[in-house]
Amino acid sequence: MSNVIDPSGIAKKFRVEVRQEVKALGKPLKVVGFLTTDFAPSVTYANYTKDACEDVGIVFELREIKRLNMEKAIIEANNDPEIHGIFIYYPIFNTEYDSYLKDLVDHRKDIEGLNGYWAKKLYSNRRLAIDSLAESDINKAILPCTPLAILKILESASSDLCISNEITDLSNKTITIFNRSEVVGRPLAVMLSNDNANVYSFDINGPILFQNGEIVETNISRTDALKKSDIIITGVPHSKFDKVKMADVKKDAICLNFSTVQNFDESVINNAKTFIPRVGPVTVAMCLRNVLRLYKLYHSK
Amino acid sequence: MSNVIDPSGIAKKFRVEVRQEVKALGKPLKVVGFLTTDFAPSVTYANYTKDACEDVGIVFELREIKRLNMEKAIIEANNDPEIHGIFIYYPIFNTEYDSYLKDLVDHRKDIEGLNGYWAKKLYSNRRLAIDSLAESDINKAILPCTPLAILKILESASSDLCISNEITDLSNKTITIFNRSEVVGRPLAVMLSNDNANVYSFDINGPILFQNGEIVETNISRTDALKKSDIIITGVPHSKFDKVKMADVKKDAICLNFSTVQNFDESVINNAKTFIPRVGPVTVAMCLRNVLRLYKLYHSK
Repeated sequence: MSNVIDPSGIAKKFRVEVRQEVKALGKPLKVVGFLTTDFAPSVTYANYTKDACEDVGIVFELREIKRLNMEKAIIEANNDPEIHGIFIYYPIFNTEYDSYLKDLVDHRKDIEGLNGYWAKKLYSNRRLAIDSLAESDINKAILPCTPLAILKILESASSDLCISNEITDLSNKTITIFNRSEVVGRPLAVMLSNDNANVYSFDINGPILFQNGEIVETNISRTDALKKSDIIITGVPHSKFDKVKMADVKKDAICLNFSTVQNFDESVINNAKTFIPRVGPVTVAMCLRNVLRLYKLYHSK
Repeated sequence: MSNVIDPSGIAKKFRVEVRQEVKALGKPLKVVGFLTTDFAPSVTYANYTKDACEDVGIVFELREIKRLNMEKAIIEANNDPEIHGIFIYYPIFNTEYDSYLKDLVDHRKDIEGLNGYWAKKLYSNRRLAIDSLAESDINKAILPCTPLAILKILESASSDLCISNEITDLSNKTITIFNRSEVVGRPLAVMLSNDNANVYSFDINGPILFQNGEIVETNISRTDALKKSDIIITGVPHSKFDKVKMADVKKDAICLNFSTVQNFDESVINNAKTFIPRVGPVTVAMCLRNVLRLYKLYHSK
């Protein structure tokens, strides 16, 4: 039987912290969320983030608008001093115009850390990506919420890695990630490799090895990468993905799925030593934390 | 019989201007081009830009590298004071990572104007997009080369619009563009609409009307848009695109194709009053102009 880790418990700890800090501020933090579709999962996620904000005392306003008005709406929210954070439920157009919209959000209000300003900070000031820094330095970076959530979950699961210190020591650990998107897979690979892990990253273009935040060429097969890996992370939103099977998983490996589609076979779900089926609640908790961090950095004066 | 405009003649005029200015500088301008593939069209384009640079006295160095080394190569070129301009032959990965790479090029060396810095300038300081500004203001903006080339070609074709002044007066003109990419179609639509044209922009998401740089909702059909248009611009790189036929084209309309695939039917090619089959040579001339502009703005001190 697997030890299945429920991310809700981990999320709760962070929400308690944020709630206390928001209360201590004594000022209302305000976030707006922009919803441009009636696509059920987006509506669900919008309501979920609304509830999460309100739960920790952050004022949340959901604005349902036409996607053609998105650009103008972002500019207005950027210029509105009453708004401290902006949430957008992507995809909007599902074309490269969405990248432009991500970049249009003022980085000082960019809860999700998707603006190029934060991406460049993550990739250039690599040491910012880990928690071993002084609190003052960490506070200068906004990291994208899902990669950050995965790091936090792995830290929580660190006892399974037989590590005594609080911070997960990834030195000499091997990790495989299926997903190299700009939103999750690539920042995550860089962050983990900065923490001294060897990270095999797979996408449609094949494998890449990340070491110390740098790209290294590799021809490793999927099976060889899996058999070596202490941690396996999947994020492929396609039902056709060839699910990871227990036969390819190293003994005691941690298996984590962040895709909306389950990328692990039943054999893994039932038999992996540690299995994390989803990360959503921690992702949202990291967003709440980012709202607070942005406020302290840019809006508290 | 159509009046077919050969863009080479227009390009030549700009190349002569750039050559004179480069000579007057008395300093060597240096551009590096990064080629990561042996895909024939990319190699051809790389050689073409090399020849064009050398033709006007700009030193050009072609660096053939593996695409995995692209990120590091850009950072090195950004930091090299001997390099004044950077050229990259996309696509590299054909994923959103390419957007990151575009943004990684220092905007002070970004010949093609693809960096978010220039995109934001184009869309926010809209009046920069047109030539009616003072030279000092124009020089502050780097516009993407293909949209700029199309504007210049339309200016050259302005006699067909029966306009006496040098600048094409687009007031009350209707234009249809098939392509809304971030590299050509959208910036072009915004630039033309800032010049007071009504621009119908079509892509897989349907039509959008641009007026004064702003997005306006529309349900216009392709046929209705075409029949109203004084200028029709096509840029769809798919052979399946339903080619524009003469029956849908307004009398005396200017027809311009910038796609690698010809998007106009033979009936248009043979019978349109003015037909422009390609823009490539002018695009490259605009790149050369941007090298000079970047040098004057950032590297001449």
